[in-house]
Amino acid sequence: MTLERAVAFAPASVANVAIGFDILGFAVDALGDRITVTRTVQSGVRIASTTGVATDLPTDPERNTAGRALLALNVAAKPDFGFELQIEKGIPLGSGLGGSAASAVGAVVAANALLARPFTKLELLKFAMQGEVVASGSMHVDNIAPCLFGGLTLTVGIDDPRIKRIPVPKGICAVITHPHMFLSTKQARAILKREVGMADFVWQTANLAGFISGCYTNDLDMIRECLNDVVIEPQRRQLIPGFSAVHAAAISAGALGCSISGAGPTMFAWALEPQAERVRSTMLAEFARNGVECDHWVVPVESDGARIVA
Amino acid sequence: MTLERAVAFAPASVANVAIGFDILGFAVDALGDRITVTRTVQSGVRIASTTGVATDLPTDPERNTAGRALLALNVAAKPDFGFELQIEKGIPLGSGLGGSAASAVGAVVAANALLARPFTKLELLKFAMQGEVVASGSMHVDNIAPCLFGGLTLTVGIDDPRIKRIPVPKGICAVITHPHMFLSTKQARAILKREVGMADFVWQTANLAGFISGCYTNDLDMIRECLNDVVIEPQRRQLIPGFSAVHAAAISAGALGCSISGAGPTMFAWALEPQAERVRSTMLAEFARNGVECDHWVVPVESDGARIVA
Repeated sequence: MTLERAVAFAPASVANVAIGFDILGFAVDALGDRITVTRTVQSGVRIASTTGVATDLPTDPERNTAGRALLALNVAAKPDFGFELQIEKGIPLGSGLGGSAASAVGAVVAANALLARPFTKLELLKFAMQGEVVASGSMHVDNIAPCLFGGLTLTVGIDDPRIKRIPVPKGICAVITHPHMFLSTKQARAILKREVGMADFVWQTANLAGFISGCYTNDLDMIRECLNDVVIEPQRRQLIPGFSAVHAAAISAGALGCSISGAGPTMFAWALEPQAERVRSTMLAEFARNGVECDHWVVPVESDGARIVA
Repeated sequence: MTLERAVAFAPASVANVAIGFDILGFAVDALGDRITVTRTVQSGVRIASTTGVATDLPTDPERNTAGRALLALNVAAKPDFGFELQIEKGIPLGSGLGGSAASAVGAVVAANALLARPFTKLELLKFAMQGEVVASGSMHVDNIAPCLFGGLTLTVGIDDPRIKRIPVPKGICAVITHPHMFLSTKQARAILKREVGMADFVWQTANLAGFISGCYTNDLDMIRECLNDVVIEPQRRQLIPGFSAVHAAAISAGALGCSISGAGPTMFAWALEPQAERVRSTMLAEFARNGVECDHWVVPVESDGARIVA
């Protein structure tokens, strides 16, 4: 049986996760993009519609993240049919929640369901990476990997990336607060120094190794100690109104850690389930005190990645 | 029953382990220092003798790593007796095999056996750190931790360090080659740039996270991919005659990775047991081609730490 049409849900994601700049990310299953791919007689890739929370997206496949990813798949698959894309954005642009990654991943996951000989997830990852180039100008996998594989993922290497799903201790939830403001990834990247001081390098690597180790051994004390970014966050927090107050509120409400999601302005915290609601409300209260409204979610960190939903 | 005398064996260790500068280390149980501590009526700490592969050590406890560590323990324990130390060095000075750490650890482990209320290992670690200050001028734990706890250890934090023993996949051996040359830790430190470029930072953190993850999941491919230092080794390898040839030989003989032990000049490789002897012989052959003779050992990485032996 050959499918005529498939709909994929591709979740939002938090990149960097405080101590894994460009290498760690986790899926946020509470919101995502829905991508419908329909088989067409005409070959090639065509974008039929873009709807949802972000309109104004380019409909030229070469300039659209979902389109570009699907073009890469199309070249490799050489199917005797074409693809038509409907993009329904659930993730706001410029939120720091991996919206472009989700569209790229959703497109290739949906299209893959139409193929007689589907690709592996690692192959899909590489197609989706082509889409990310359109959005960010460079290859980044730290949103694509968790969006595709789910949960907390580590990416090693760029040209031939290896993905490792890192287990997350039971009961850990992510609190996500998305302030209503726009912050461009390019601006947030441009602000970063090109070098890391040696003392910060050692400190950050200790935190990263301790965090990974804590995840494998259910060591919540170690995770709490290590979920602490001494390199990137100090340079970027000025871009987010109320950052320090929100961060302090999350920690005092019992969060294991709190930092910027990707390039911002979304902030995330990790908390055990019993503390998660209180962490959310204190973070929102501090944002409100700074005159910033937020969308917000609480989700388990362990989750599935992008999947066919219809 | 109160002991009059205890003898501790404290193993050598490899710090940094390619991708964990100042935070990772593993014990090398094939050689070590033997420290004898004897109860004396006179209070305080006295060094009775220093023998073995390094003589010429200071016998003023304040200026001796073992003496200084034991002074720190003495202040905390306030025993109604004193300690006399006999130091038998099995680890050459300036080899990059954690000789000063071993003497400090051996002293506090042996002395601890004489106390009615012994300290925990984490307390002993802090006393031993005081000894390391004498040798290196600063607090370093990356040799002390594996020497005391055994196996592969991660240290997070300096003032209040947390130690994590990282499991090593079964069958992994360390090949250790100690070239007969002196290289001062201060020189090897002075050569390092004070900053790390952002691209190298990301690459090295990916390797570190992948390595830790590979150790927890018996993923030898990941360990092989990640046991690769792009930050420190490129700056230090010029200090070791034949480094590049020795490194290439180890990898082509099947090693999972090969790098500098601590500040050098000792080099280590990780290899599975069936390949270990071939890795050793090719490394030695390349050193010999460069006119350098070596001491050499092959040991399982998983091992006990410092312990009472008599």
